[in-house]
Amino acid sequence: MTDEGLDRYFFNPQGIAVIGASGDPTKLSYGTVHNLIAHGYRGPIYPVNPKGGEIQGLTAYPSILDVPDPVELAVIMIRAEAAPEALSACGERGLKAVIVVTGGFRETGPEGAALEASLKDIAARYRMRLIGPNCVGVMDSHLPLDTTFITMMPEPGHIAFVSHSGAICGGSIDWARSVGVGYSRIASLGNQLDVDIADGIQMMKDDPNTRVISVYAEGLPDGRRFVEAAASVYRSKPVVMLKAGLTTAGVQAVASHTGALAGNNDAYVAACHRAGVVMVHSLQEQNDVAMALATQPLPRGNRVALLTNAGGPAALAADALDRQGLVMAPISAATQERLKAVTPPGTQLGNPVDMLGGPRAGMFSAAGKILLEDPDVDMLMTMFVPQAITPVNEVAQEMVKTGLGAEKPVVACLVGGESLTETIYTLNRGGVPFYRDPNRAGRALGGLWEYRQLRERPDLTPTPVAGVGRAAAQALLDAAREQRGAGFLDAETSARVAEAYGIAIPFSGLAGNVEEAVALAEQAGYPVALKRIAADVVHKADVGGLAVGLRDADAVRAAFERVTEGGRARAMVQRMIPKGQEVILGARRDAQFGPQLMFGMGGLYVEILRDVAFRLAPISAEDARGMIAETAAGRIMRGVRGEPPGDIAAVVEALQRVGQLVVDFPNIAEMDINPLIVGPAGAGVWAVDVRIRIEG
Amino acid sequence: MTDEGLDRYFFNPQGIAVIGASGDPTKLSYGTVHNLIAHGYRGPIYPVNPKGGEIQGLTAYPSILDVPDPVELAVIMIRAEAAPEALSACGERGLKAVIVVTGGFRETGPEGAALEASLKDIAARYRMRLIGPNCVGVMDSHLPLDTTFITMMPEPGHIAFVSHSGAICGGSIDWARSVGVGYSRIASLGNQLDVDIADGIQMMKDDPNTRVISVYAEGLPDGRRFVEAAASVYRSKPVVMLKAGLTTAGVQAVASHTGALAGNNDAYVAACHRAGVVMVHSLQEQNDVAMALATQPLPRGNRVALLTNAGGPAALAADALDRQGLVMAPISAATQERLKAVTPPGTQLGNPVDMLGGPRAGMFSAAGKILLEDPDVDMLMTMFVPQAITPVNEVAQEMVKTGLGAEKPVVACLVGGESLTETIYTLNRGGVPFYRDPNRAGRALGGLWEYRQLRERPDLTPTPVAGVGRAAAQALLDAAREQRGAGFLDAETSARVAEAYGIAIPFSGLAGNVEEAVALAEQAGYPVALKRIAADVVHKADVGGLAVGLRDADAVRAAFERVTEGGRARAMVQRMIPKGQEVILGARRDAQFGPQLMFGMGGLYVEILRDVAFRLAPISAEDARGMIAETAAGRIMRGVRGEPPGDIAAVVEALQRVGQLVVDFPNIAEMDINPLIVGPAGAGVWAVDVRIRIEG
Repeated sequence: MTDEGLDRYFFNPQGIAVIGASGDPTKLSYGTVHNLIAHGYRGPIYPVNPKGGEIQGLTAYPSILDVPDPVELAVIMIRAEAAPEALSACGERGLKAVIVVTGGFRETGPEGAALEASLKDIAARYRMRLIGPNCVGVMDSHLPLDTTFITMMPEPGHIAFVSHSGAICGGSIDWARSVGVGYSRIASLGNQLDVDIADGIQMMKDDPNTRVISVYAEGLPDGRRFVEAAASVYRSKPVVMLKAGLTTAGVQAVASHTGALAGNNDAYVAACHRAGVVMVHSLQEQNDVAMALATQPLPRGNRVALLTNAGGPAALAADALDRQGLVMAPISAATQERLKAVTPPGTQLGNPVDMLGGPRAGMFSAAGKILLEDPDVDMLMTMFVPQAITPVNEVAQEMVKTGLGAEKPVVACLVGGESLTETIYTLNRGGVPFYRDPNRAGRALGGLWEYRQLRERPDLTPTPVAGVGRAAAQALLDAAREQRGAGFLDAETSARVAEAYGIAIPFSGLAGNVEEAVALAEQAGYPVALKRIAADVVHKADVGGLAVGLRDADAVRAAFERVTEGGRARAMVQRMIPKGQEVILGARRDAQFGPQLMFGMGGLYVEILRDVAFRLAPISAEDARGMIAETAAGRIMRGVRGEPPGDIAAVVEALQRVGQLVVDFPNIAEMDINPLIVGPAGAGVWAVDVRIRIEG
Repeated sequence: MTDEGLDRYFFNPQGIAVIGASGDPTKLSYGTVHNLIAHGYRGPIYPVNPKGGEIQGLTAYPSILDVPDPVELAVIMIRAEAAPEALSACGERGLKAVIVVTGGFRETGPEGAALEASLKDIAARYRMRLIGPNCVGVMDSHLPLDTTFITMMPEPGHIAFVSHSGAICGGSIDWARSVGVGYSRIASLGNQLDVDIADGIQMMKDDPNTRVISVYAEGLPDGRRFVEAAASVYRSKPVVMLKAGLTTAGVQAVASHTGALAGNNDAYVAACHRAGVVMVHSLQEQNDVAMALATQPLPRGNRVALLTNAGGPAALAADALDRQGLVMAPISAATQERLKAVTPPGTQLGNPVDMLGGPRAGMFSAAGKILLEDPDVDMLMTMFVPQAITPVNEVAQEMVKTGLGAEKPVVACLVGGESLTETIYTLNRGGVPFYRDPNRAGRALGGLWEYRQLRERPDLTPTPVAGVGRAAAQALLDAAREQRGAGFLDAETSARVAEAYGIAIPFSGLAGNVEEAVALAEQAGYPVALKRIAADVVHKADVGGLAVGLRDADAVRAAFERVTEGGRARAMVQRMIPKGQEVILGARRDAQFGPQLMFGMGGLYVEILRDVAFRLAPISAEDARGMIAETAAGRIMRGVRGEPPGDIAAVVEALQRVGQLVVDFPNIAEMDINPLIVGPAGAGVWAVDVRIRIEG
């Protein structure tokens, strides 16, 4: 079934059968039939019950096979054990879409899991798409359509909600009704046996009533599918995502830096970056951001004007804006002059525009409109703390007037409780989202700006990397696997694999005597360094164990004597590379989201500094540049305190090459280059220490 | 007036005069007299109005001088220009406490500021304490007492609220009433001409009805007074503090609002640490945390049990707990066995304890009590998503039963809206705080644990540092000031000042020829290093410009030739210090909070790495250890990857010495030691580069 089909059969079916429909009002299936009727579904509704007869005034059919045309969607609400048979019957009847509401499958243990697997087989056999099991179904408030047993329907609105959890759907509808917020569609996906979060996002893409797709996810088993689905949608509609289980999910202990650092959360963040998702971290934040995205135009910039009757909340709002990367708009002298004419005497005309204790309600729209006309103002936050003199609901009506038809976002923040009940409806239904706390209003505006930037960002599609020695790398990896099986490759092989993919490795070799040292130095090219290699030396750069800057054979000879204490140790001869910044460049394979790249401050203290950014591999040059810029390592690389800038272009290329390598060889489980030495701009980068771990 | 007097006269006055009382219901002063009567103040109330007569059934007096005994508090509500005269009259009448509600002072400009200054003089002359001007006054819900014109009074409760802003008091009362939360006392301080946040905290300290002190501040002009006040209170009562103006934008907003100095975020965080304050960053978070502290016992540990009917919100809660430094309690087999008997079949008995779709209300108290009896459970979060079968308010009543008399904290998280109105009252009034979002419930439990740890932390009182050469430092600083005025001291003087306070400085000297170099080396003690000093060398460690590990005079002679290229440059002779970690140790003087210490990763990239902790100076050894432990530099110092641990004790001592130095010399505006080289444990620390800036 195509994505269009998903949309068509689940949200606009011609005829719906409810298998397990009941006339007993204490049964959930009673609720579903009731909701289909009461919430206004316009097509035929067929209760299916072995007893036949009549249910809630509708003819009941003993089996789905008896149901007449048209019927395009079945809702299965019988006990788990009987569900496979009912599903088979749906297949026989020629249905293409089924919602299995029934619980008692995978979530209950191995027996349930086996039962669930049989559902999957049956659906595949008949090429049916299946939502659930263990879900509450779908709603469309505009059509309208309600296949759930939830007692309430949301008001029609523009937020589509895709939820793993049915309970959170119910709670969200309850919340939305209490504040006058509407939903366009709701889909509860339950165990996601077939239709998953990725499909859920696709199902909302072409709905004309949906302006923002709000997603609540628990697991994302096929992470790459999710990334592709969201990435294909986010430039037309924002996806606001909340994921549970970011900290509790176990992190596998792995030996290298990358594994220890990555964890599920880092991979998830990398996936959301590629997917173009607006990430949120609580239900409240999700609703706050979605409300703004559903109702407001996108801002052209990040400059916010505050219009208030109280300085304290405005100061809190200013702090909140700063945390969101937004700035206080400068208010021009001309605008201040205009404001003066419509605000009370004594009004503070800068930003915040503080009308102090006594503004009349109308001043909020008069001053608000003037602020919106200032070209330096990109967004407006109107704020009000209820005061005896000015009726709060009148203020809200004026705020709605301000927002009406505005081409810039307008939100409202009112501090209070009891006195605001009516006001909240006035604002939210009037298209100016209401927030009770300046911090929440600030986050909402921040969400608008964040999405605006996401939508306009350059294309991040990775381009294939040229000039990689795939066959050479293949040969090295195959040989290593044959010889030693899974696990870490030796340092030399790791370096050669990296080299095959175009990562520069400084020449080095081990000399047992002085003439070997000279020969190696000639091969490496001068200047070279000599390092004593002996079991008892921990720090290779200890005084006496190191000679640097050797520019000819004589210098190598003299240094060899000293470094090895007259030949009592061996010496590593290494081509000297320019001084440079030490960074770490790594890759790991995440179980959900596949290969990831890591970049940050290198050296011994990687875990402690935690200056690392993650991205999905492969990676575009643009994305790699952004990744580098996120880190302190990247900021240092731009040149600090008169130091020359590092070769950022070469780091970008190295990231692309490592990304291509781990994509080309799925048995590379992890890889670290630590340090990668970054020379001055134009001089290149060198991988000093490469570690690769392969899986069996 | 003593602190006890503040409490007595502002919150339990025998007789209150309202100067500027009016019979006109549109006037704010009408509201104040009305509230004093209607909200149940039991002492005599004296309206003062030049016209005399009767106001709201009370005899009005033409002047405060005419008011009979007893009268102990006056509320001045006349226009600003007339306020000084009225205040003088209060002084003549022998009053000790006055609230000036009137606005139009400092916040309006220089003229208002002058008027405000005259109030200050008058109050000082008569030794009166003054709240305001530009405030709404005080409330005590238990007494009761209400000197404000706010139309509503909060329910009696256990949160005392001290607020800079009157508007936020009004908004908070409105909110509290809508959710059944009570306040013990409210004090709005306005411009804080006399009674400030520090006094406000003191005023709540001995109130038997107050269990938590919630503070909203904008400026904190006398930061050290605030620190002392909170530090003297926090072990008996928690102080939960929200401050506006922490970001650049917020600081400007505050400045324009009240003309207050908002200050620097790092200094504020350091002050809150010393003061023992629980910091919050939004009004909502402040209320959420205060509600828990006002009603719950403190947890013995950080292990939380979740009891729920829905897995999704519980997963979100688990994430939230992790972010708060809390952990999921292990549920013992014995407890699971007991839970099994009181929960529905299929209940997930681990943590979260998930009763799935069908628990009856009574199961919440039955299972909740069993969880509270498990010794491995320190706190309980009960969670419910409204479902058709179980009436939500019955669930709330069972949650209240669970919390009743429990010796461990119990909070409730219910996801929803419309259906919860009654439930919110049931829970909050029943002593189990209600939260609408798992994240907020998690923050509330985190606040309890945070306060528990604060209350039990070791004493941070700094002890004087012995062995400092105050006279020597004084002489150096005086000489420098005489010679060069304010600004940076030269490197040598800076080093000598630090040395006078017991900070080790590596010996060094500049040699113009080879024999000078040898002499300096003999003076320094071997091994020494030689560095070429010449204008054209940027990197002193460039090949050829540096010789290290020179162990005798011959080595120095040979090296001098090479390093200076046969005497063409000079050489710095320096006693070699052991290899060590480079850290930064600094001090700054903050306009609000006085001298601050800074510690973190040293070297060139201090600003980019931003691995720094701040504390008030002087500092105790305990506090210095905590400061070091907060940073990545401190974690590295404990020994990483087989490296030996650094000399943490010596860093602690250096912090104490620098702290003492900047306390002893208030004209030291800032000081940096970067790097401070930290040797292995027991080896000491060396200040390689010291910078000191003095003020005129």
